[in-house]
Amino acid sequence: MGNTFGELFRITTWGESHGGGVGVVVDGCPPLIPLTEADIQPELDRRRPGQSKIVTPRDEKDRVQILSGTFEGKTLGSPILMWVQNKDARPEAYSEMAEKFRPSHADYTYIAKYGTRNWQGGGRSSARETIGRVAAGAIAKKILKERFGISIVGYVQQVQLLKAAVDPEKVTLREVEKNIVRCPDQAAAKKMIQLIEKTRKAGDSIGGLVGCAARKVPAGWGSPVFDRLEADLAKAMLSLPASKGFDIGSGFDGISLTGREHNDPMRAYNKKVKTTSNRSGGVQGGISNGATIYFRVAFKPTATVMHPQKTVDSNFKNTTLRGRGRHDPCVLPRAVPMVEAMTSLVLLDHAMRHHAQCNF
Amino acid sequence: MGNTFGELFRITTWGESHGGGVGVVVDGCPPLIPLTEADIQPELDRRRPGQSKIVTPRDEKDRVQILSGTFEGKTLGSPILMWVQNKDARPEAYSEMAEKFRPSHADYTYIAKYGTRNWQGGGRSSARETIGRVAAGAIAKKILKERFGISIVGYVQQVQLLKAAVDPEKVTLREVEKNIVRCPDQAAAKKMIQLIEKTRKAGDSIGGLVGCAARKVPAGWGSPVFDRLEADLAKAMLSLPASKGFDIGSGFDGISLTGREHNDPMRAYNKKVKTTSNRSGGVQGGISNGATIYFRVAFKPTATVMHPQKTVDSNFKNTTLRGRGRHDPCVLPRAVPMVEAMTSLVLLDHAMRHHAQCNF
Amino acid sequence: MGNTFGELFRITTWGESHGGGVGVVVDGCPPLIPLTEADIQPELDRRRPGQSKIVTPRDEKDRVQILSGTFEGKTLGSPILMWVQNKDARPEAYSEMAEKFRPSHADYTYIAKYGTRNWQGGGRSSARETIGRVAAGAIAKKILKERFGISIVGYVQQVQLLKAAVDPEKVTLREVEKNIVRCPDQAAAKKMIQLIEKTRKAGDSIGGLVGCAARKVPAGWGSPVFDRLEADLAKAMLSLPASKGFDIGSGFDGISLTGREHNDPMRAYNKKVKTTSNRSGGVQGGISNGATIYFRVAFKPTATVMHPQKTVDSNFKNTTLRGRGRHDPCVLPRAVPMVEAMTSLVLLDHAMRHHAQCNF
Amino acid sequence: MGNTFGELFRITTWGESHGGGVGVVVDGCPPLIPLTEADIQPELDRRRPGQSKIVTPRDEKDRVQILSGTFEGKTLGSPILMWVQNKDARPEAYSEMAEKFRPSHADYTYIAKYGTRNWQGGGRSSARETIGRVAAGAIAKKILKERFGISIVGYVQQVQLLKAAVDPEKVTLREVEKNIVRCPDQAAAKKMIQLIEKTRKAGDSIGGLVGCAARKVPAGWGSPVFDRLEADLAKAMLSLPASKGFDIGSGFDGISLTGREHNDPMRAYNKKVKTTSNRSGGVQGGISNGATIYFRVAFKPTATVMHPQKTVDSNFKNTTLRGRGRHDPCVLPRAVPMVEAMTSLVLLDHAMRHHAQCNF
Repeated sequence: MGNTFGELFRITTWGESHGGGVGVVVDGCPPLIPLTEADIQPELDRRRPGQSKIVTPRDEKDRVQILSGTFEGKTLGSPILMWVQNKDARPEAYSEMAEKFRPSHADYTYIAKYGTRNWQGGGRSSARETIGRVAAGAIAKKILKERFGISIVGYVQQVQLLKAAVDPEKVTLREVEKNIVRCPDQAAAKKMIQLIEKTRKAGDSIGGLVGCAARKVPAGWGSPVFDRLEADLAKAMLSLPASKGFDIGSGFDGISLTGREHNDPMRAYNKKVKTTSNRSGGVQGGISNGATIYFRVAFKPTATVMHPQKTVDSNFKNTTLRGRGRHDPCVLPRAVPMVEAMTSLVLLDHAMRHHAQCNF
Repeated sequence: MGNTFGELFRITTWGESHGGGVGVVVDGCPPLIPLTEADIQPELDRRRPGQSKIVTPRDEKDRVQILSGTFEGKTLGSPILMWVQNKDARPEAYSEMAEKFRPSHADYTYIAKYGTRNWQGGGRSSARETIGRVAAGAIAKKILKERFGISIVGYVQQVQLLKAAVDPEKVTLREVEKNIVRCPDQAAAKKMIQLIEKTRKAGDSIGGLVGCAARKVPAGWGSPVFDRLEADLAKAMLSLPASKGFDIGSGFDGISLTGREHNDPMRAYNKKVKTTSNRSGGVQGGISNGATIYFRVAFKPTATVMHPQKTVDSNFKNTTLRGRGRHDPCVLPRAVPMVEAMTSLVLLDHAMRHHAQCNF
Repeated sequence: MGNTFGELFRITTWGESHGGGVGVVVDGCPPLIPLTEADIQPELDRRRPGQSKIVTPRDEKDRVQILSGTFEGKTLGSPILMWVQNKDARPEAYSEMAEKFRPSHADYTYIAKYGTRNWQGGGRSSARETIGRVAAGAIAKKILKERFGISIVGYVQQVQLLKAAVDPEKVTLREVEKNIVRCPDQAAAKKMIQLIEKTRKAGDSIGGLVGCAARKVPAGWGSPVFDRLEADLAKAMLSLPASKGFDIGSGFDGISLTGREHNDPMRAYNKKVKTTSNRSGGVQGGISNGATIYFRVAFKPTATVMHPQKTVDSNFKNTTLRGRGRHDPCVLPRAVPMVEAMTSLVLLDHAMRHHAQCNF
Repeated sequence: MGNTFGELFRITTWGESHGGGVGVVVDGCPPLIPLTEADIQPELDRRRPGQSKIVTPRDEKDRVQILSGTFEGKTLGSPILMWVQNKDARPEAYSEMAEKFRPSHADYTYIAKYGTRNWQGGGRSSARETIGRVAAGAIAKKILKERFGISIVGYVQQVQLLKAAVDPEKVTLREVEKNIVRCPDQAAAKKMIQLIEKTRKAGDSIGGLVGCAARKVPAGWGSPVFDRLEADLAKAMLSLPASKGFDIGSGFDGISLTGREHNDPMRAYNKKVKTTSNRSGGVQGGISNGATIYFRVAFKPTATVMHPQKTVDSNFKNTTLRGRGRHDPCVLPRAVPMVEAMTSLVLLDHAMRHHAQCNF
């Protein structure tokens, strides 16, 4: 349980870090969407380790393969199986992990839950699991773009205490991809990269904020009670490894304002309604209002550090553990495509749900 | 769609603010749990308007009635229908709402989605919808308490810029209920009440933070991928009216730390593992680790204010609207039982899911 | 669990035979459908006991009330709560049931499952539970009729060994409602009524077959693997009390034919395809082909008979039990609206699913 | 949509007949179950074409591979991906299928639904899709056997008009596997094989009945309303290719009896209850009563025959089509493991659901 996301555009990811491979089944995709591996691979390349000097150096090519659900370059409407074979099977590099629980990782909680775990590379809790999400998200993003003109842009907004200036109304993929940290504020990006490199050399890690903007989402998507658009986005983001917080629109900062200050005034415009400010973040009462949807996700510093840390072994004896070989000093650059993927999945699912009930 | 929450302890709420009534069906409740209206009513009393001078004065008794699913004072295992009849049917008090969209409410988005809305009192987007959640949550909370000794305590942590000092490891319901703002820091509470009263008199509204702690949750609940405990909590919280953000453990503040500083060291303890700090917030890799689960929810200032605001009418003409009669200057005191209810629902659902798969 | 049916047009029934009432929540209904109690009540009247001399005489008026989900006579898109208050609370008439398990009823299996049961009138296993289904089905039937011109007609096809001649392509509601047994073959109906009356006087019961035809279902509804149209119909029918079998199209009789004889030849017709026979029953590979969908449901004789029968009491002692007061000699006339309701629910749900994915 | 089965032991199948491969993801499997390919392969071997002279001769080895969800020979509790690579990629053998709709196949209905189809070998409607089901069912069957001692035995009960004598209380796998038609009545089996061979030579096909018995299912599994055990079995069976009917216990034959004759008398036995007959088929009110569950499934003759048949081409012109090369004269022998697999999936899912709610 717990490996499926979405109601109508429904994905199920599978696979451990080490083992045959990792992948995803996408069920519910509309038929006749042009789709080949070339639509998917670029997003996986943005996600993969080893893409730059500031991310984890594990070198994985991550070549995606589509095994079902397409025919002559188009979707059939049947389940789409996409997967990436596991290549990096060097269990010895991780063998100490078989005996010791890594602090602030899921090693102990897996044992508490299942009584077992694949200790090689973190098993299912590895960030490698997100390959399936990013692959599925690439399809969703493509459909949203082609059918509705929606653009979904994620970006690094803050690295530890270094903040970037980003305007969700204007930020572009091109600006984001101009640097390896994926921060559209080029000056801030430079400092961020330096900070991450310094942190890496110190064998330590840092976290920060990823922001995301979805523009041109039509008014009316979402649901007023449990499946509010912001609720499903929050779930999607908190399901990403290392995420610890989410806010939308004015978010945590909005609490300094009064209602008079916070409310978004409305103006009529061609039989539609526009707000002249967007503290709501594009969602009101759980439903999109046509304004740009923007939100932030807080990621903690990654747990693997190159220093001895107090922990416990599988015989429940106290011990210490020190990360070895390679580590990811900052998850943020690779988190950007994950955030975009999850956003795309939430939006497409709600688009289909809206269509099913309200355009019936 | 979107009116059901939970997989195994599954609730579906129904009802508009004005109309026959509001309620909930709970499906999947274990049999033979002692249950009468007396178990539910106290939580509804904490939620209801008119309970104190600082909340919305709409005077609703909100008497809950159980129509099915119990027999001779115990649950049967069949669906439990609980409801509250609507009494406060004064549509004239709201008639301007029929014509104008209230800013930062869901009036316009409902029209965008459904092409219709029950404009009386906000219809389904009214906070009145949460009656069903609180009633269902009361059952979940009771089961968690009786089966596992879990205590779930919500509290007001911040009102606008006024912060309280609260220790999630120790906060008690008694401290919370000592004052009408539901803040366990009595000195802060006093100031908060003054601020809310002042705001009410000014016809304005303010927001803030609700915190929540769940203690004695066993290690092993949750799920490693999409249905992470923190992901489902995030969704639950962002599904509450007026909520804009969520973070767990170190949350947004954790990004100032490095990995070395942030990681929770582990120590063995009777064949279990304890962490000597709790920046993880009781959840690691989506699964509870036995430490206290604590998190925060950001609520914006409520949208209804007693001042004219720019808006649009249903003919898409620009106009202004001013709240009338009564308004809620601060949603936080009433949000506390809602947050506890949603937390209880998430935890019990995951308890049952864990039991189904891992204790099979 | 187990009280919800449907994915997109999703109903959850609740309520025991004795207790506050019985009802249903319908989630996912499209907005702006004209709907009042007057659309629902006629179907409940066809379902209710006491409607004629050949059904169980328990006299229940079963007045339906809509508590939510409509406004000014139209659906809102929010959950529709419909219910019927329980009136017939005469527990003494059933008190022996508190002590003894009725043979071939669910009394013992409820105890085996839940460790408890509401023994008054069968609790949740009472046919009274179907009120919610029939109410929800009435909405679905109305939408299918108005949007697609689909007509769904159920009928009694066989009572014990008495068979009727019915043509699924032509049978009408008017013919069905011409007599109290709901058999469109008026000559057969007369004999059936006599047989049921004789059976009732003998304190015994009989079963038979209900048939159902759905005409003008567009080609393309359904799903090719697990959620085949015939699979969901089979589940729907086998979920009705006392049903023991289902077949579609040629069904159990089709096995006497060879493939050459059984296949339905196809002919082109205005860019569509028609079959010149309909042994497929309107479904091929799980998907409707545009031909009339027709199927049969086998109902066993109802279990309550006015004769002593060997059974066991709640202390697990052998004993005998004899039905008292009143009994239902034949469930078939009342099963007809139930079969139509479940058919409507399956078809509308698949219509919405088809729309969501393939008309996106 | 429609490619997932089960609530807690949840499987999603994927793959077309031609393309990369076919497979299944199993989510919710309890951890620490010993599992390797050797547990799965034997069931696939019973399902595969080419296993005997009376089934379709397409020669597929169907070697299953487990890509995730196990570690050191045991399940992890994470999703299990099993698949079989497609080898038999000879599109030319089917090229006429690209242009013409095969009568009583899903070719036309796929086009009506999706506007496209993978015409190679039937795509997703190929019986090859059942590989995933049989693989997943093998896991479920193993768990049911090891945890509860449940045996699930399917068998051919009737081929066209040739009936076998089978006692569901006693039939064994060994008897079933003694002959290639999988009929435990050896005398009947002989005649059946002759009939099938004769039919094959005539280029025609025949159908019949598959029966199935599940013994030692504990009392209390199932659910009283929509998810009755018989309802979920009916859905499972009607989801198999070529199935047209289902009945349980006395089924269609039970309608000749009166209630007095049909009811199963109950006798106490060690604080449990046994029935002295079993017309209920092991299920009462949707819940197992501890008696043997037995039911029948009607399969039509397979649609591919070696004779010209009237049909329509993809330009909606009338034409004829004649099957070529090879065909399956009788689906029944291969349907037996499919029926067992689906039965296992239904029972294990209900076991887990029962455990989740009633043993909580």
